[in-house]
Amino acid sequence: MTGADTIFAGLNTPRLILDADRLERNAAQMRAHCQRLGVTLRPHLKTAKSVDVARVAADGEQGPITVSTLAEAEHFAAAGWRDILYTTAIAPAKLPRVHRIQSDHGARLLLTLDDRGTAIATGEAASALGARFGILVEIDCGEHRSGTEPASDELVAVARAVAHGSPHVELMGVMTHAGHSYAFDDPASIRALAETERHAAVASAQLLRSHGFPCPIVSIGSTPTVAFADQLEGVTEVRAGIYLFGDLSQWSRGVCAREHIAVSVLATVIGHQRRGPSPSLILDAGALALSKDVGANRFMSNAGYGLVCDAATLAPLASLTVATVHQEHGAVPIPDASWFGRLPIGSLVRILPGHACLTCAPYASYDVLRAGKLVAEWPRTSGW
Amino acid sequence: MTGADTIFAGLNTPRLILDADRLERNAAQMRAHCQRLGVTLRPHLKTAKSVDVARVAADGEQGPITVSTLAEAEHFAAAGWRDILYTTAIAPAKLPRVHRIQSDHGARLLLTLDDRGTAIATGEAASALGARFGILVEIDCGEHRSGTEPASDELVAVARAVAHGSPHVELMGVMTHAGHSYAFDDPASIRALAETERHAAVASAQLLRSHGFPCPIVSIGSTPTVAFADQLEGVTEVRAGIYLFGDLSQWSRGVCAREHIAVSVLATVIGHQRRGPSPSLILDAGALALSKDVGANRFMSNAGYGLVCDAATLAPLASLTVATVHQEHGAVPIPDASWFGRLPIGSLVRILPGHACLTCAPYASYDVLRAGKLVAEWPRTSGW
Repeated sequence: MTGADTIFAGLNTPRLILDADRLERNAAQMRAHCQRLGVTLRPHLKTAKSVDVARVAADGEQGPITVSTLAEAEHFAAAGWRDILYTTAIAPAKLPRVHRIQSDHGARLLLTLDDRGTAIATGEAASALGARFGILVEIDCGEHRSGTEPASDELVAVARAVAHGSPHVELMGVMTHAGHSYAFDDPASIRALAETERHAAVASAQLLRSHGFPCPIVSIGSTPTVAFADQLEGVTEVRAGIYLFGDLSQWSRGVCAREHIAVSVLATVIGHQRRGPSPSLILDAGALALSKDVGANRFMSNAGYGLVCDAATLAPLASLTVATVHQEHGAVPIPDASWFGRLPIGSLVRILPGHACLTCAPYASYDVLRAGKLVAEWPRTSGW
Repeated sequence: MTGADTIFAGLNTPRLILDADRLERNAAQMRAHCQRLGVTLRPHLKTAKSVDVARVAADGEQGPITVSTLAEAEHFAAAGWRDILYTTAIAPAKLPRVHRIQSDHGARLLLTLDDRGTAIATGEAASALGARFGILVEIDCGEHRSGTEPASDELVAVARAVAHGSPHVELMGVMTHAGHSYAFDDPASIRALAETERHAAVASAQLLRSHGFPCPIVSIGSTPTVAFADQLEGVTEVRAGIYLFGDLSQWSRGVCAREHIAVSVLATVIGHQRRGPSPSLILDAGALALSKDVGANRFMSNAGYGLVCDAATLAPLASLTVATVHQEHGAVPIPDASWFGRLPIGSLVRILPGHACLTCAPYASYDVLRAGKLVAEWPRTSGW
């Protein structure tokens, strides 16, 4: 076994490490699962924000993808992706930028909206810009964040405003997101929500078709509901992203195994705090390097801001966790002083993230490990 | 009064807005305060990460500054700053990079450490690299994050290892940080902690001098303790950073007024959620645009993830706050449906941040307002 100092020689911590073997396994497993379910996989790249990861997700193809910012849309369009679903509801003032992304790169952005006024304004902007926009109407399957009531008059009114507003705008279908699946950690509840999500989308599509509206796309997805879905009849495509990486939040909900978590933060022990109520290791990974997301603690009370692991093997070190973070410091309480000897100042550790989407966000790149060796650095995009 | 749509025309939200008038006022007030106290101000630029803001902080000078990452040190050294204190404890593996920053740019980095072994390793590295390092020994004045016991044998042992280890290493003094000042919101408690912080540093410096060690620098600081300090006898310099911007966390502790908060996030209303337990406005500013820091709620229970304000005037809109965040969505519960009319989809709002250090972190630049007009875009650095 090569030591961590050799594997990571020359890296300035904190760094974001991506295990390509685990990533490829996670990607292949989800592709196979979607194939069994008979749905197109449209990977959500808000977590990875990387063209290299996007290629792994689709086994080398530049197929359909999902993004959550127009900066991501620009990034992937510039790199050759052509079928991009932007899932954050569009605001009309952003349409000139959408038009520019489409025309600069020959890409097609699918936009989402849930409001009649926005649909009308989008039609007007499309005509004024000479642009063509494809639209999915968002359905609220229970998260109560965005979307119309499923299979409702409200949905039909929004769809009508899309379809009849401008010849430059095309109604492409419906989409929904069961983000409330994160409130559960038992398979039966998540499976039930997956069915609720499916039904909301499919019933909405059926209602629109019964009114004569086309509805070629029926899009659902959150990583937990896609992972636990038994059947997705009537759904055409699923969106999921964090399955590529996994994290403590996914692990604690049974959506992935710990051994499949593909991203971690490489950190250095920079201090031994021997005083105070909690003798602790001090790491150079704090609130910015790990994020302040503590959502994983809902079903994993000791997740803290991340689980501390051996830097070479990624095996957990007892159950050490980052319990406190300041901007650039993380404190890891230790059960006894022997840990000061086991992890002297200068030691490397790796931290499994609570919520990969947020932990990865501030890093400009991934350092990519394959078979225990650093083989590449993959850039990430960021911002809006 | 110019409308928000005019002021911010052409910006793609979310964006980070910096009010230069407020910034200059905050900077001038702290400079005057430090002059009255007879101490050098060494602004901490971990919040601003901007050479333009650093110039405002020092009224145009390139004087002493503080940073928390080597990326910040590199950024400011490359831009001409020469006296840079790096306050995150050094790990020996980072010394070649420190050496490179110093020699590439003719800058002097002051490093901090609190451990005898690190001091010895730093001396060895300095000799091996042919580098010169200036060192402050960190003192723990009660936060129990980093630092030796004040005025202790441990302190003397670390100082001795610094001073006697290598002719390439120079002991420059002591530093401490009363980060636990954020546990209080009453001036008397913060003032008492300021005195504890001062005393820990000054007594430590006196002990080192009594052992024959030089101690030209006695450095203390956190924005609350510096702001509330009555006297700083024996202290040579103070470190503070967030006073430049302010935020809800500072306001809730009485460290700044709301009208002095200089940074805000410009966001667009992208949805009206009429269902569910909390009818809400949906913004395109979520966990990444605002951060998941909720520390401001300790003394301001309705701070949420930020306070929603009129985009043009920055006056709070009733007491609307961002109560829930997803990666790119923020939900703002409204007391009644009239808010859907007051803030239709497409409206701009500005959000006062809970914790400016974290909210600013993901943005590549500030859009700078002066007298209610956008006048500049100032770049920010990031990463490690």
